[in-house]
Amino acid sequence: MHQRLDILTLGVPDVAAARRFYVEGLGWEPTLDLPGEIVFLQVGHGLLLGLWDAGKLEADAGGADPPAAPPGPLTLSHNVGSAAEVAATLERARAAGARILKPVQPAPFGGVYGFFADPAGFRWEVAWNPGWRVEPDGRARLDAASEGDEGR
Amino acid sequence: MHQRLDILTLGVPDVAAARRFYVEGLGWEPTLDLPGEIVFLQVGHGLLLGLWDAGKLEADAGGADPPAAPPGPLTLSHNVGSAAEVAATLERARAAGARILKPVQPAPFGGVYGFFADPAGFRWEVAWNPGWRVEPDGRARLDAASEGDEGR
Repeated sequence: MHQRLDILTLGVPDVAAARRFYVEGLGWEPTLDLPGEIVFLQVGHGLLLGLWDAGKLEADAGGADPPAAPPGPLTLSHNVGSAAEVAATLERARAAGARILKPVQPAPFGGVYGFFADPAGFRWEVAWNPGWRVEPDGRARLDAASEGDEGR
Repeated sequence: MHQRLDILTLGVPDVAAARRFYVEGLGWEPTLDLPGEIVFLQVGHGLLLGLWDAGKLEADAGGADPPAAPPGPLTLSHNVGSAAEVAATLERARAAGARILKPVQPAPFGGVYGFFADPAGFRWEVAWNPGWRVEPDGRARLDAASEGDEGR
């Protein structure tokens, strides 16, 4: 199994509401947009974010006996280039209908961060991490900060 | 907010168990590996998958009042190039400690797929989707199948 995630599909209670947030609110362009059914958005090189009805997603993937346990918590992270950009991004998300979970503040990894929940409750971290960089070949680096480092 | 996911961090009950599955079981190489603490694995161009203690992840991101709702279901998808590769990938995952949720079978989008749960319960779809392709510039395409298409 190659080391690759191609699609992350989020099961949402209301595809139209999720679409409004990401497409109309954040201004993201859909790759595939079937109103009321499913939306796919490009969120990286060869990477799609899917927004699909939670019940349909479960029905499609389900059937296991015993059923899959509910997964643990998770966070989608979006890295930006400065503290000011973290604040502006959180504000943009709030204006689009997100709930701010944690306002911009110093992060344990040495920059600043904040968190919001999308309308379905999926959590995004918006971070400026001075140790984050992506090489031209796509390799991501997380260089440890000099102090207060928690390995992120 | 740019249309980009940089890190997906999964909150797991046992980081060592998650590490064993992905690193020793699947043979994935860590970008950052702090035993018992956190592991980051490159899963795409500029994209990391994080495995972090669920309690620490919640403590780091939490504090909202009211707390964030538990997110809905979700699926991580891994696309491969043939039906045989779907079967082989599921078998590899099973051998590494995954639970098969749905064995290889025809998919509504026109290829074949199957699902497994990692040791923490996070669900992966392994799919051969004839309509999936990634352009040299990284743009992902999901061309509709001619019949039985559900928009994926």
